[in-house]
Amino acid sequence: MSRKYVYDFEEGDWRNKKLLGGKGSSLAQMTQLNFPVPPGFTISTDACIDFYKPVKDKIDNLIRELARNPPPEKRDKIIREIWDLINKLDLPDGLMDEVRLHMDRLAEKMGRRFGDKDNPLLVSVRSGAAVSMPGMMDTILNLGLNDDTVKGLAKQTSDERFAYDAYRRFLQMFGRIALEIDEKLFDEALEEIKREYNAKYDVEIPVEGLKKLVERYKNIIRDKYGKFIDDPWGQLEIAIKAVFRSWMNPRAIFYRIANNITEDMANATAVNIQTMVFGNMGEDSGTGVVFSRNPATGENKLYGEFLPNAQGEDVVAGIRTPLSIDELKTRFPRLYDELYEKVKQLERVNKEVQDVEFTVERGKLYFLQTRAGKMTPLARVKTAVDMALEGIITREEALLKVSPEHVLQLLYPTIDPNVDVKPVAKGLAASPGAVSGRVVFHPDTAVEWANKGEEVILVRVETKPDDVHGFYASKGVLTSRGGLTSHAAVVARGIGKPAVVGAEMIKIDYERKMFKVNGHIVKEGDWITIDGSTGCVYIGKIPTKMPELIEELDTLMKWADDVRKLGVRANADLPEDAMIARKFGAEGIGLLRIERMFRKPKRLEKLRKVILSESREERLEAMEELAEMIKHDFKEILEIMDGYPVIIRLIDPPLHEFLPRPDEILKEIYELKMSNASEELIREKEALYKRVLALTEANPMMGHRGVRVGVTYPEIYVGLTKAMLEATAELIKEGKNPILEIMVPQVSMAEELRYVKENAIYPAAREVEEKYGFKIPFKVGTMIETVRAALTADEIAKEAEFFSFGTNDLTQATFSFSRDDAENKFLPDYLTLGLLQDNPFQTLDIKGVGELIKICVEKARKANPDIEIGICGEHGGDPRSIHFLHRVGLDYVSASPYRVLIARLAAAHAAIKEKLQ
Amino acid sequence: MSRKYVYDFEEGDWRNKKLLGGKGSSLAQMTQLNFPVPPGFTISTDACIDFYKPVKDKIDNLIRELARNPPPEKRDKIIREIWDLINKLDLPDGLMDEVRLHMDRLAEKMGRRFGDKDNPLLVSVRSGAAVSMPGMMDTILNLGLNDDTVKGLAKQTSDERFAYDAYRRFLQMFGRIALEIDEKLFDEALEEIKREYNAKYDVEIPVEGLKKLVERYKNIIRDKYGKFIDDPWGQLEIAIKAVFRSWMNPRAIFYRIANNITEDMANATAVNIQTMVFGNMGEDSGTGVVFSRNPATGENKLYGEFLPNAQGEDVVAGIRTPLSIDELKTRFPRLYDELYEKVKQLERVNKEVQDVEFTVERGKLYFLQTRAGKMTPLARVKTAVDMALEGIITREEALLKVSPEHVLQLLYPTIDPNVDVKPVAKGLAASPGAVSGRVVFHPDTAVEWANKGEEVILVRVETKPDDVHGFYASKGVLTSRGGLTSHAAVVARGIGKPAVVGAEMIKIDYERKMFKVNGHIVKEGDWITIDGSTGCVYIGKIPTKMPELIEELDTLMKWADDVRKLGVRANADLPEDAMIARKFGAEGIGLLRIERMFRKPKRLEKLRKVILSESREERLEAMEELAEMIKHDFKEILEIMDGYPVIIRLIDPPLHEFLPRPDEILKEIYELKMSNASEELIREKEALYKRVLALTEANPMMGHRGVRVGVTYPEIYVGLTKAMLEATAELIKEGKNPILEIMVPQVSMAEELRYVKENAIYPAAREVEEKYGFKIPFKVGTMIETVRAALTADEIAKEAEFFSFGTNDLTQATFSFSRDDAENKFLPDYLTLGLLQDNPFQTLDIKGVGELIKICVEKARKANPDIEIGICGEHGGDPRSIHFLHRVGLDYVSASPYRVLIARLAAAHAAIKEKLQ
Repeated sequence: MSRKYVYDFEEGDWRNKKLLGGKGSSLAQMTQLNFPVPPGFTISTDACIDFYKPVKDKIDNLIRELARNPPPEKRDKIIREIWDLINKLDLPDGLMDEVRLHMDRLAEKMGRRFGDKDNPLLVSVRSGAAVSMPGMMDTILNLGLNDDTVKGLAKQTSDERFAYDAYRRFLQMFGRIALEIDEKLFDEALEEIKREYNAKYDVEIPVEGLKKLVERYKNIIRDKYGKFIDDPWGQLEIAIKAVFRSWMNPRAIFYRIANNITEDMANATAVNIQTMVFGNMGEDSGTGVVFSRNPATGENKLYGEFLPNAQGEDVVAGIRTPLSIDELKTRFPRLYDELYEKVKQLERVNKEVQDVEFTVERGKLYFLQTRAGKMTPLARVKTAVDMALEGIITREEALLKVSPEHVLQLLYPTIDPNVDVKPVAKGLAASPGAVSGRVVFHPDTAVEWANKGEEVILVRVETKPDDVHGFYASKGVLTSRGGLTSHAAVVARGIGKPAVVGAEMIKIDYERKMFKVNGHIVKEGDWITIDGSTGCVYIGKIPTKMPELIEELDTLMKWADDVRKLGVRANADLPEDAMIARKFGAEGIGLLRIERMFRKPKRLEKLRKVILSESREERLEAMEELAEMIKHDFKEILEIMDGYPVIIRLIDPPLHEFLPRPDEILKEIYELKMSNASEELIREKEALYKRVLALTEANPMMGHRGVRVGVTYPEIYVGLTKAMLEATAELIKEGKNPILEIMVPQVSMAEELRYVKENAIYPAAREVEEKYGFKIPFKVGTMIETVRAALTADEIAKEAEFFSFGTNDLTQATFSFSRDDAENKFLPDYLTLGLLQDNPFQTLDIKGVGELIKICVEKARKANPDIEIGICGEHGGDPRSIHFLHRVGLDYVSASPYRVLIARLAAAHAAIKEKLQ
Repeated sequence: MSRKYVYDFEEGDWRNKKLLGGKGSSLAQMTQLNFPVPPGFTISTDACIDFYKPVKDKIDNLIRELARNPPPEKRDKIIREIWDLINKLDLPDGLMDEVRLHMDRLAEKMGRRFGDKDNPLLVSVRSGAAVSMPGMMDTILNLGLNDDTVKGLAKQTSDERFAYDAYRRFLQMFGRIALEIDEKLFDEALEEIKREYNAKYDVEIPVEGLKKLVERYKNIIRDKYGKFIDDPWGQLEIAIKAVFRSWMNPRAIFYRIANNITEDMANATAVNIQTMVFGNMGEDSGTGVVFSRNPATGENKLYGEFLPNAQGEDVVAGIRTPLSIDELKTRFPRLYDELYEKVKQLERVNKEVQDVEFTVERGKLYFLQTRAGKMTPLARVKTAVDMALEGIITREEALLKVSPEHVLQLLYPTIDPNVDVKPVAKGLAASPGAVSGRVVFHPDTAVEWANKGEEVILVRVETKPDDVHGFYASKGVLTSRGGLTSHAAVVARGIGKPAVVGAEMIKIDYERKMFKVNGHIVKEGDWITIDGSTGCVYIGKIPTKMPELIEELDTLMKWADDVRKLGVRANADLPEDAMIARKFGAEGIGLLRIERMFRKPKRLEKLRKVILSESREERLEAMEELAEMIKHDFKEILEIMDGYPVIIRLIDPPLHEFLPRPDEILKEIYELKMSNASEELIREKEALYKRVLALTEANPMMGHRGVRVGVTYPEIYVGLTKAMLEATAELIKEGKNPILEIMVPQVSMAEELRYVKENAIYPAAREVEEKYGFKIPFKVGTMIETVRAALTADEIAKEAEFFSFGTNDLTQATFSFSRDDAENKFLPDYLTLGLLQDNPFQTLDIKGVGELIKICVEKARKANPDIEIGICGEHGGDPRSIHFLHRVGLDYVSASPYRVLIARLAAAHAAIKEKLQ
């Protein structure tokens, strides 16, 4: 046995969390800082890894199967297989020898001996992985007790009742956890004793009762396990095994799957064996938890609670109300001072808000664990800024403490915290925000009701592409099936609607237009509230509120702006979006999609006319009317962004998006026929059907769209360009400073860009300039969203003043994945099978799409060093993608307005991390 | 004037065709070889370029507009504009001075003087560009004649009639060409004289008549031009200008557009001024044309004709039957011997079959021009091989003489040469092959008739995207408008249908469903025959035949095989294709598409069942039945290719291709409803409608297909793999040597390939190997048809034993062009607007797709030096693409069976050209 498995708290390297686990590492740290820590040692994760070695491959395969979310019977079968494999395992050779050695050292330190009937050493055996998995694994306290040592404990503590109480607690825990005996048996025995002694609470059971209980517990163990183990060493070995096994209990496995905890982050648990201290040895004892700052608000004040005369498990039982830390300060000022000083010391050393567990035994304070405190996003921002201002951390460290996701959560409405409500169901938090609305079950109903001014929530078992119009009409979406990559989740996130998905307890009955949940019946039109940040579903209209944007967030963002190198713009299509974008600090608009301006029915009608025109004249006329309509929007947006660039993309209609489906028209035709409608009406519909059929494309995403439409129907581009330039000209006349950049979509060859410049954009510009009598400044650039554009960037860069990566389309083209189809059909499988780590439409695929971006940037900058290069695909608002985009040297990212803050922060992170390398 | 414009035949560098033009260069060569050539000189193309310089940009723009095939009125307007520009131009400064100098030298050489009334020098003025444009530009003969010199000529020749005949010919040509007087006026005057003198033929007009005619001609000129130019120098200047102008006459412009003659190939015409010799000076004179070998059959024997006592124009008039060269040999053996020797000398020097023009004046042979002979593809192959065997050229030179297009034409049906028919019209040869069918004028009619089993030819003025369904239904396509890049031409070539386009003499009347051509009336339903290799249109059903493959082609191909480095395989899906492929020398199958095996109704039904299955079990069952059906085909093909590799691609169904369209099913449902069909039938259809709707994809090309289906339904891949391996195993048992390579389609990540290997292919292999009891050798590889696969080739190469570029899909993904939609909607526009030079689905886009191929090959070979890399996209049969693929170092190309010969030849060309560099 060449490997060292066991480390005393004094000797372990507390920075090595992977080896010692989180708990072991914190115990080592506090011990080495000379804090009062009950002595002990850690069995490293290496031991656990060696424990599993004989069956690792098999278990890995089984877990992979579990990750694929098999049906329940299959799942149970796999779990049983895992358990069968594990139950045959033995501790690694030599581990127990090493443990004995350290136990002996511990005994020496404590002046007590393990198994000694006069002065016994008792220990706790606790799990502790590198990543905190609260409640997922097992702990056994008071280990070392048996019929002999319990007497020693009674002697030591001069408290027989205490000793037998500790003994029965140990038996219960050991029986349940280490020997896997059904918990109910112990509970029943306890209840019986309580009845026998007329005890309402456990504490009212007299010593005799506890002794009787101990005998009954031992009988249960003998009965179920075959024998009772009274040798403390035997107990210890079994307990260590049990903790190792708990790493692979189904709870823990599913927790890791759900939270995406990879082997790389944590691949085993350590075991911490520590001298017992007791918080239940009278009123000068107790147990508590303290945060170095308020984890909800971030206030710089100790926060937590203390339960006198209790062990940790009593706090959980909730029988007595604990004291607040403020009360502790009043009642035990010395204790408070020591606690305050030490906790703050830990905060300074660890540069993190601390979450500390402590126990007081007969007036003496012991530290049992410390870790970084889990905080609300709000508290995280405030504490980061405060700690920087206090000099504990640098501004850059403060920035790194706040993740873009935290900021994101600060921007969505939440259930009003002052309202006391319980959710009726919980699903997956698929798209953040809390929102109320009346239940509808069909997307068409959603549209219909929304048009009447109703606020609705679309409730479906699952959603399909055909339902998407319902998403837009609804305030939020709730499904009873599907995961975080289901259609509903993906679409809702995509368009920024709150969504809860996979709320399986909701039973939907489409026919009767209602759903049942936990005995409640909710009918169409009833109000519900969903919180897409938590996954909670409530009945009724629950008040929500927008979180206030705290001053510290502003401060943090300013620091971010100081650090970042990437510019941050927003994708905004409407004046209201532009306003929000400015408020969040966008430095211009990176993408204005004209198509989105056509949501209004009157405009949509005109657009359809443009598309369906059979002659150039017809098209020209419809186009001019349309341009006039949107010119005012252009002007408004340019004015809101005064002094900042506004990139307007020439229309890029994958035509089908604006047309009815052929089979839908056909349906109408037949319905008309069957209802004996007028011949004329039928003929009209038939003409439409024919025209739509002619326009229908096999693959509209790669069809007659973007610049291809500009080439074949330049009049469309002429009309739009004139609208933009007239808006610009009018603002200039009003003394404003509009900065217009015209962007051509779907370019795959320099020739296309040159053609539409020469045959549409420049002629239109000449016309407008003549009309206004002055030169109108504007730039012309192109999306880089086809692969060929990226590969021939050198040629295209000579025709363009700016590039903007359209990574949505570029990702489609790189993978040959149609996003609509992929996210509905096979992407979820790819993610669960592990073929993909991330949805490439959310997080940039570095190897493929990223490679193209690199090639493109390099070629473009070489051919045209002045070219401005940004990104306006969805990835521009994705933190991990932003890191990559920073590294390849883009000029800016453009994100949806609500993601501007996130982008600013992520850009800062990227800059800092680059420096740190 | 620093530039030298004029070169005597003795001094010009005959290799510089670009400067001297083809004719000038040949005259220089023959002069310098001491052939009897009437002395003269060449005004170089430089002079013509300088002539056009002042208006070049304007003309270029106008020509570009013409190339876009504008409507007739627009076209006429442009032509007028060009003409207006040109008419104002003057000869470059100093040119005439230089011409005078050389004329004087010529006079000295000849002992005659230009304009001398006693012994006049007469010259011809002929155009001649670097590229031969037969009949496109102008020639003036007998220049130098006027009322005085005609008498001198009479004296010189002692033949007054001859002199006046020459004079009237000159006046007519000069009037028509140089002065642009309507030809009809001269013709009418000639007819009148003939009536007056009762002359049936021109030769019967007596001298007086000719003299009278000369007067009348001069009057016509005076009348139309304002004056008569009798100064020979003035005549000469006007004639030179006229030849320069003829470079830009509409005929010539359209010829260059239609034949894709770029500025690079020929950007001006030279002018050749040469002493006149006369073939019409009696029976010991004459004029002729001779080929050094038979241009139709390639036979090594002089071939051509000789018309005694005639000038070139008389041959065209066709009054007398010329002698064959064989007859010349009998009648003028000395002349024949001299001709033979000189022609063969030219062939040896120029290493080309020669097409020589000669004139005999009073027994003396003069050479007027030589050029490379235009030959039938058959003759081209035979002469190339013969000349190599005779030692005139090397084998490699022989190979280079035959272009892949020549070989291609040898493979298409032609009009049976034994049938004596004349075409009624000639258009552009847009897509090769001769084919007969009944005329239809509407694509819908084409479909309707084709469905009834009729063979039809679609005849349109021009075609549009909406007509494409008619192409598929027709045997061939004929249009009366448009060039070689018109929509009709592009689409027909794209889908391999014979087509003749721009046959302008055909006047189509859609309303009366007929067309007129040269006085014939052809109605809907009448038979016609078109030959897309020649552009000829015939009335009636003319017999066509497949050309016989001559022995020399075989020889040439063997030489090609010796030289080429690229392997050549075939794409073949059925046993009959595999047979053809072997016959044409394919070294294996590069792509077997399983989908194509499902054309048979019973199989298609099963396949639909596989696709529509809602459960794994259902799918598995249908799949196994299907696999059993196709196993026999696999076996047959592997046996045909015994000893050669056969790459079978796992199924890649873009599902929609195998399913009915939703609106079509809906139509059926309503028809059933309206005809009161049984409820059950309707319900069944409705269920199908629902299922198809669920499977319908927004962009099936990028949807749930290829390996994505293999990942989500591995049972499909298992079934297919088993079928392949069982076929292989059975052949092995029979002592054969089947070489199976299994190819996975649509891979975009190494993970996908690994997944289907581990979860479908290898398990299936283990099962079959167990069944047969021996190890079955096979390889696993992947298509490279997604961009990401190319970019991450290093990772994928570690999972694959071979790569095969699927450049069809790769091109789609690179451009983001859906081929179906692009070729119907915007690609024809792109080609006519010049945004694209070639259809990238036919000729590889080097800049984009080519770049990906380069990246991929480099990365793949680095990661896996043993990997075999080929191509199975359509480009594998395209000669220009093959050159590129050779250069990037592919192992083989795979082409459709009929393109295997072409690929072998192109691969040889690539290897030779690489060596020459």
